[in-house]
Amino acid sequence: MKPVRVGLLGLGTVGTGVVRIVEGNQEDLSSQVGSPIIISKIAVKNSDKSRGVYIDPAILTEDPWDVIRDPEIDVIVEVMGGVDQTKAYILEALEYGKHIITANKDLMALYGSEILAKAQEKQCDVFYEASVAGGIPIIRTLIEGFSSDRILKIMGIVNGTTNFILTKMSKEGASYDDVLQEAQELGYAESDPTSDVEGLDAARKMAILGTLGFRTNVELKDVSVRGISQVTKEDIAYAKRLGYEMKLLGIADRDDEHISISVQPTMVRRSHPIASVNGVYNAVYVYGEAVGETMFYGAGAGAMPTATSVVADLVAAIKNLKLGVNGLKAIVPYKQKKLKDDEQIKYKNFILLHVDDKAGVLAQITQAFAQFDVSLESVVQQPNEHNPYAEIVIVTHDASKASMNKVLEHFEGLEVIRTIKSVYRVEG
Amino acid sequence: MKPVRVGLLGLGTVGTGVVRIVEGNQEDLSSQVGSPIIISKIAVKNSDKSRGVYIDPAILTEDPWDVIRDPEIDVIVEVMGGVDQTKAYILEALEYGKHIITANKDLMALYGSEILAKAQEKQCDVFYEASVAGGIPIIRTLIEGFSSDRILKIMGIVNGTTNFILTKMSKEGASYDDVLQEAQELGYAESDPTSDVEGLDAARKMAILGTLGFRTNVELKDVSVRGISQVTKEDIAYAKRLGYEMKLLGIADRDDEHISISVQPTMVRRSHPIASVNGVYNAVYVYGEAVGETMFYGAGAGAMPTATSVVADLVAAIKNLKLGVNGLKAIVPYKQKKLKDDEQIKYKNFILLHVDDKAGVLAQITQAFAQFDVSLESVVQQPNEHNPYAEIVIVTHDASKASMNKVLEHFEGLEVIRTIKSVYRVEG
Repeated sequence: MKPVRVGLLGLGTVGTGVVRIVEGNQEDLSSQVGSPIIISKIAVKNSDKSRGVYIDPAILTEDPWDVIRDPEIDVIVEVMGGVDQTKAYILEALEYGKHIITANKDLMALYGSEILAKAQEKQCDVFYEASVAGGIPIIRTLIEGFSSDRILKIMGIVNGTTNFILTKMSKEGASYDDVLQEAQELGYAESDPTSDVEGLDAARKMAILGTLGFRTNVELKDVSVRGISQVTKEDIAYAKRLGYEMKLLGIADRDDEHISISVQPTMVRRSHPIASVNGVYNAVYVYGEAVGETMFYGAGAGAMPTATSVVADLVAAIKNLKLGVNGLKAIVPYKQKKLKDDEQIKYKNFILLHVDDKAGVLAQITQAFAQFDVSLESVVQQPNEHNPYAEIVIVTHDASKASMNKVLEHFEGLEVIRTIKSVYRVEG
Repeated sequence: MKPVRVGLLGLGTVGTGVVRIVEGNQEDLSSQVGSPIIISKIAVKNSDKSRGVYIDPAILTEDPWDVIRDPEIDVIVEVMGGVDQTKAYILEALEYGKHIITANKDLMALYGSEILAKAQEKQCDVFYEASVAGGIPIIRTLIEGFSSDRILKIMGIVNGTTNFILTKMSKEGASYDDVLQEAQELGYAESDPTSDVEGLDAARKMAILGTLGFRTNVELKDVSVRGISQVTKEDIAYAKRLGYEMKLLGIADRDDEHISISVQPTMVRRSHPIASVNGVYNAVYVYGEAVGETMFYGAGAGAMPTATSVVADLVAAIKNLKLGVNGLKAIVPYKQKKLKDDEQIKYKNFILLHVDDKAGVLAQITQAFAQFDVSLESVVQQPNEHNPYAEIVIVTHDASKASMNKVLEHFEGLEVIRTIKSVYRVEG
């Protein structure tokens, strides 16, 4: 039977994983799709580099256009990364009628709608399961598994580096800087960790999940982002004492048709299923109107988990190819986007204040919350023997972001408050 | 645009949920499939019964054949339950070229291969996501999400009733009988709970998951089954003391091409993600060669979660209908089934013995393990002040079922052993 020819852009660890799976599971894969799958051309940066897997040198090229313009190739797997140049390659490949599998979250978060529109025009598949949460088939689940339900909330631990750091800080009482350094030595964090620790990587993934979950075009700029670099071991100790775990959570939620998407360090109640997701693992929690609580857990990165998702997408595209139905099941966002304003965004808050240790302070503080309509779940004041100030820990009920901003602004002007030490979102 | 007409067999809680979702989310659903979805005929036992949702009496019938033979109906949703008569309805509906969505695990576990073969012959879809783990899209995940990987192990908490009972026994130190009674009062257990508590319900679901995961035709008789009715609160207390949680686990695993499938109360190490799945929730843990550890968590039953999966399947079948590709992506088991024998089935064991409290007993016991090649991870003997015997708790390393059976048989003949109190599989 005529084989399906696949072109690969990039041959790093994920690309090598794709080659391993396609070759190692050839029998299984070809019985699923009804013909052999051949990786017939691979674009690499340096064709002389050794890669720990045998690849016929004749199929390597240093020019991606060789792959994109090869008329024999039906499907292109993009695992080279990059944004603008890569987008140009992919749009051109679609122009040639080729189907695309990509693991590139940056590309899909920034140019997903443009790429999907071109794919629809050309009746091509663009699949990108591996772009969010590596080995967890969450995109397929949002598109198909919950196609019948109205998704109200998605919460994700979608960045392994920051979850490794927070887990380690929590288990060992270690400081952020020490754990970051260890993560860098272990290869779990980049030498420039900004994109991970400042929440940008998670934000890109949440833009993709929000788009799929709410069927509206969520852009990166719609995601409010705060990273973990300011999280202290004291904050984590407080969280644990109150029965929470600190997690960098992406949260996308909606009331009626208004949505909000954010990424921030969040105190999650320990009984919530996502609170026990530790180390480099990822998880995506989905709350649907009918289905209720569900959660999907697995490796968020790593060559082989990511390659598993890439090849699953490849199998799906090839099945469509055999049936002549590529591009016909694409989910194109069709709902008008309405973002919540700060009055509509509501959640619980944890606030840690350092205040003067004298009479009347607590009254001034609780009065400020009352003035701006923020009701409190708990307030604990404790004197600190070693310091000339007292600590006040407050957990609010759900409060609007607008009200909380007013409270915090008011606190800035209160003389008895020495420092607004920490403010965190609370979930669960 | 011409609507798609759907016939419903059964209008219990799940059927009513399907009606609610199809009507409540009509706008979303029809933008996905490109035409309205109309439930045009419903077979019920008693057409006069009130159901808490408005249904035009004109579409009710007490004769399922009215639905099956209606030439206007494209897709049949079977939520009536039952096995032999229901199988006849479904085979006949396929004969008429209708696509089938079913939530019926008994039917699929017993006659899945016959039904799927008929569907393939008629180029019809048969989807059954709701038959295992209600709201968790695990069947889709096994078919599509992990199509590229070699699945080595599936572990499932796939019965909510027993998980509710074991969780409650663990959290409250309560006895099996008391908790079962409470579960019955709460409606979480049937008045005749045999199918749940003896593991039969879980076994049916594991037969379905094993078939999909290993692409071979696992039948109910291939599943070795043991229920929870003999689990005591003392067993659970022992489990907790050793760092385990007691769960009714379905386990399907394979080495090379030999597989085994079982359901039994299992001590799961607390750090394993499946150990923290509590109450009526279900979870399916999948270990793939490339993807590593993943887990899928959610409601295993309940009208709305189950209806979510049914309607997601309905959407998929209607999309295929529009594209003219029904029945073409079916997974038909193609691998020859090779079951592991008792020498090949290996796992860790927990054994609790009541023995004579005198010198030399421990030596006799450990010698028996050595004789049959079972190596031990830990042995703890503790005298029991209140009783004239001592307790010995043993955890083995991985041992073959055959060897363990020989050890236990040998123990039956040892005079110093008064009772083999408990034997459990250990995981994690």
